[in-house]
Amino acid sequence: MADAGVPRLRLRLDLAAGISFGPGKAALLQGIAETGSIAAAGRRIGMSYKRAWQLVDGLNRDFAAALVSTSRGGAHGGGAALTPLGAEVLAAYRALEAQASAGLHDGLVRLADRLAPCDSG
Amino acid sequence: MADAGVPRLRLRLDLAAGISFGPGKAALLQGIAETGSIAAAGRRIGMSYKRAWQLVDGLNRDFAAALVSTSRGGAHGGGAALTPLGAEVLAAYRALEAQASAGLHDGLVRLADRLAPCDSG
Repeated sequence: MADAGVPRLRLRLDLAAGISFGPGKAALLQGIAETGSIAAAGRRIGMSYKRAWQLVDGLNRDFAAALVSTSRGGAHGGGAALTPLGAEVLAAYRALEAQASAGLHDGLVRLADRLAPCDSG
Repeated sequence: MADAGVPRLRLRLDLAAGISFGPGKAALLQGIAETGSIAAAGRRIGMSYKRAWQLVDGLNRDFAAALVSTSRGGAHGGGAALTPLGAEVLAAYRALEAQASAGLHDGLVRLADRLAPCDSG
């Protein structure tokens, strides 16, 4: 799973009208890259099989080329992998996220300091 | 409503374990500031009355002091307003958002350039 350290920020990018890319899609793409499976990638982030496929289908339509390639059948029921564009988009998102995290760190900590004192175990 | 210009980014801040602040809560607080009503603020962003109240209640518990003050009864069925801390938190979030938008603009545009050509009307 992702680093649970807080405070931290996550980015949602509204790339065009009705087309966004955010933490969920990034985690799905990352999971596909790491597991070779859309179903397994979805499970890792608590996303249903149907929802994961819908997101992949949408991503493949929204971008200039597919971000995820799939192969059906075979002993393992088919696999999935990021295309070069898929890897590029994920890396670009992670780079923007890292840049924002570095630039906004101090302000984020100041905001977190406004929270109620933590008294849970 | 918010500026619909794209590409743009939105921030989700994970301030502590289980406590996040993002576009929805910011829009709700902004709506409360502008309408003086939790219900009206929720309606502006397509959020149910119940959900809007739940979010306000959670915000008031999560931070060191309430972010929204409410008055019940009266001719208008009660009103709501941001407290000083509520105004401060909203302003801090908007400032972080603006900082990120400025710093990440070029990378965001490059990513949006990877989208499929737009052919819808």
